[in-house]
Amino acid sequence: MSRSKDDPVQGSINAGGSAVGGSGSTSAATPRSAAGSAGSDFLQLDIGPVPAGGRTEWLADRLRAAIADGTLAVGSRLPPSRVLAAELRVSRGLVTEAYQRIAETGQVAGRGRGGTVVVAAPPPVAPPPAAPPRGGGLVDALRAVPCRIDLSPGVPDLTAFPRTAWLQAERRVLADLTPADFGYGNPQGAPALREAVVGWLARNRGIRADPGEVVVVAGVAQALWLLGYVLRADGVRRIAVEDPGSLGARRQLEYGGMETVPVRVDGAGLDVAALRASGARAVLLTPAHQFPTGVVLDGERRRELLGWAAAGGVVVEDDYDAEHRYDRAPVPALRALLPEAVCYAGSVSKLLAPALRLGWLLVPPRHLDAVIAAKGHADLGNPVLAQLVLARLMESGELERHLRFVRRRHRARRDAMLRAISAELPEARVHGAAAGLHLMVTFEGAHVEDTALAAAALERGVKAHPLSWHRITPGPPGLILGYAAGSQGEIEEGIAVFGAALRQLAGTG
Amino acid sequence: MSRSKDDPVQGSINAGGSAVGGSGSTSAATPRSAAGSAGSDFLQLDIGPVPAGGRTEWLADRLRAAIADGTLAVGSRLPPSRVLAAELRVSRGLVTEAYQRIAETGQVAGRGRGGTVVVAAPPPVAPPPAAPPRGGGLVDALRAVPCRIDLSPGVPDLTAFPRTAWLQAERRVLADLTPADFGYGNPQGAPALREAVVGWLARNRGIRADPGEVVVVAGVAQALWLLGYVLRADGVRRIAVEDPGSLGARRQLEYGGMETVPVRVDGAGLDVAALRASGARAVLLTPAHQFPTGVVLDGERRRELLGWAAAGGVVVEDDYDAEHRYDRAPVPALRALLPEAVCYAGSVSKLLAPALRLGWLLVPPRHLDAVIAAKGHADLGNPVLAQLVLARLMESGELERHLRFVRRRHRARRDAMLRAISAELPEARVHGAAAGLHLMVTFEGAHVEDTALAAAALERGVKAHPLSWHRITPGPPGLILGYAAGSQGEIEEGIAVFGAALRQLAGTG
Repeated sequence: MSRSKDDPVQGSINAGGSAVGGSGSTSAATPRSAAGSAGSDFLQLDIGPVPAGGRTEWLADRLRAAIADGTLAVGSRLPPSRVLAAELRVSRGLVTEAYQRIAETGQVAGRGRGGTVVVAAPPPVAPPPAAPPRGGGLVDALRAVPCRIDLSPGVPDLTAFPRTAWLQAERRVLADLTPADFGYGNPQGAPALREAVVGWLARNRGIRADPGEVVVVAGVAQALWLLGYVLRADGVRRIAVEDPGSLGARRQLEYGGMETVPVRVDGAGLDVAALRASGARAVLLTPAHQFPTGVVLDGERRRELLGWAAAGGVVVEDDYDAEHRYDRAPVPALRALLPEAVCYAGSVSKLLAPALRLGWLLVPPRHLDAVIAAKGHADLGNPVLAQLVLARLMESGELERHLRFVRRRHRARRDAMLRAISAELPEARVHGAAAGLHLMVTFEGAHVEDTALAAAALERGVKAHPLSWHRITPGPPGLILGYAAGSQGEIEEGIAVFGAALRQLAGTG
Repeated sequence: MSRSKDDPVQGSINAGGSAVGGSGSTSAATPRSAAGSAGSDFLQLDIGPVPAGGRTEWLADRLRAAIADGTLAVGSRLPPSRVLAAELRVSRGLVTEAYQRIAETGQVAGRGRGGTVVVAAPPPVAPPPAAPPRGGGLVDALRAVPCRIDLSPGVPDLTAFPRTAWLQAERRVLADLTPADFGYGNPQGAPALREAVVGWLARNRGIRADPGEVVVVAGVAQALWLLGYVLRADGVRRIAVEDPGSLGARRQLEYGGMETVPVRVDGAGLDVAALRASGARAVLLTPAHQFPTGVVLDGERRRELLGWAAAGGVVVEDDYDAEHRYDRAPVPALRALLPEAVCYAGSVSKLLAPALRLGWLLVPPRHLDAVIAAKGHADLGNPVLAQLVLARLMESGELERHLRFVRRRHRARRDAMLRAISAELPEARVHGAAAGLHLMVTFEGAHVEDTALAAAALERGVKAHPLSWHRITPGPPGLILGYAAGSQGEIEEGIAVFGAALRQLAGTG
């Protein structure tokens, strides 16, 4: 080959046609890149050009400057002197001497085995902004406003997160992983998790599926985003959504370029005749526990929807909180009835924690390849470790145990909320209490804006969603009240705050 | 309120205007949902309608059917009899009797504290397909083909993944997390990780940034996807890419709807005059270690690029393997020179493991809000636990220690590959050996297709990328050879296989 063995790093050539080169470069803005050049990633130090007699002071100067301008923040560790000396190809004594000089001015201190740590006060820094995170809309902004008591819907009892079981499962996963498992994974999801999800859905949701139909996703939000992308590519530009229905889901679809078409929900669920009349070729719905009303899609509507889907309609089933039910028998998933036309989405956000960003999507054959491709392009697949941990929790029965545990807690909290509403919000009509993690209440005769009510409560430190957020067609004011995440005391206090706010707004307080 | 206390779950109403309902429903396809209905999520069992005398056999039948049709796979656990009895509101004896009946036929067995487990052989199931994952293209397909020795570029030494340090950091993270941390997080990324990334980039890449400019992403692939989306929304439809350059990055941008415009790379890096001539308003490049040639963008080109960006060009810097260098001083990031015009992307894929799907994107103010919004809509933000674990590893110095460790290993493997090439592929010219995780070799005079060479080696169980995959303009054949992930023995054997394949294809074997 054309490389000289004496010069192991110079492989630069000019290939005919498309000229490509090695690492050779000599111009000013680029550090020396000749073979044997000594430098450190740490502060991009390049001591090569510094005369031998000035190197200690040069190094100390660089460290002082980095501390002064905040590059090295208080608490930062300097590299071990042995390591930095090797990287700069200088004596270790030179480095320790430089460290000593800045230690004398109190900027760094030796911390024994903790190494040498920056201790001088940094230049004043602005406090982290209390503003809501950027780029989000209404819901994100409300989420970010700090509050004392959070009755927002959609969050389970987070104090119950099975930290020990999670860590134990992760220890086993880490012990069993092969090095190849740490590489680029299957964008469709880890086979072990797809198998475990199939078992979970068979046991708990009456769904038969093949692991090849499962796509592991970063929650239902991503599932909707992926489906919107794929449906649009398939020529579907309009998707029907429930009214009232989830604002977040609607925004998600619209961001993906879909037009959403509201279809009314009544006491039997989505009005399928209205869906048919809308001309939409796809529909997103929450048949087991409609969000936010809590209504169950009834048998006749299911049959009508089945007929609509058989004629070419695409059904997207968001089974967002199906595992949580208290006073009623389980409701089978639509997916169990017509697998070839239903895209089914679920996640662990309501089972374990939203912070895990982990869910699943069952995709009929027609759209499967496109969804996997979209997932691959979106992020190359979900992180692998958490997938395998969840698979273990599903297969060991740990997740079912956890579900039974939180269900008892959630039921007690729901009952506490019902009692508090009875006492503090006697005007309220309660909907959908038999399942889920939230109630909907409406105020039929009240002349009050529910957004004003929510704002008044937030001023008193209590947060919930105004129903109007989740309505497209106007209707009576109301609230969506999550009961799963707070203690019974918080629930009681929060509902009392809403009661006081309502009385004040209605002029009866 | 309008609910009766005696009937705590019936809150159905008809609200004026938009009729919404509770959980009431009586039609056939929906299970009974009256208050007090007894059913279990497990197999969707609803024992209510079954006559008292037939319930044990009915339950045993349902279990047999679920085992026979595979709903309950071998290894599945039945719920504890106490739990199932409570859910069905039957005696525990009824459930244990049903379990006993199917145990007698050998379908389930008691496993002490492990519960009752399905042990009968399931119906025959097709083996998992050996086919490549669906939905991917050329590279994905090649990735999925099994091989004995994988010299694909872009993967670090995965045997070195710091399992113990990761688990210890995760234990601390889990111990310290508040319940609220398990909820929906900030789509921009956990503040602790954004702070840690800022410190890491300051110490190791010479970059000054504010945590508010950092967006945590699922790797550089997602970063490119997000940027493509945002740039398109900003009216930028064409983005220049390096030629040769990463096929994966190009596909990523094209999937996001961008048109890619090839701009040639020579011995000084990207040809900025050609970029200017292309009319593209944005460019993706790998200035510190060009993929795949390994060339460093030199000082004059940097100044030219700076001028181009100052006139409104958007620079996307993929700093994909900047931490890995062996015989040269560190190369500063472009971002450090012109922060207001450079979107800077990096990840832990080459530092720790691609399976973590975790990286960062620094975004100039002009596009920051749009990128955060796109990230929020894509997946609501990265999973939180892994973000906090990485923050700990960065702040404790553990990640720097790991980098020093793998750098020594990678250097030894690179040297082994250079020796093997010298011995087995004397025709090859080597490029870009001073840094990174791969070499590029070209065969100037060889009359051989590099795709044929890669295919011939793959037949012998050895995988690498043909250079032509990463070229847009044709040029001499070549290979991209990753040396970081394999042992020295694998490297030697893999290069020998390429040597034999080349001799055979060239008719000299």
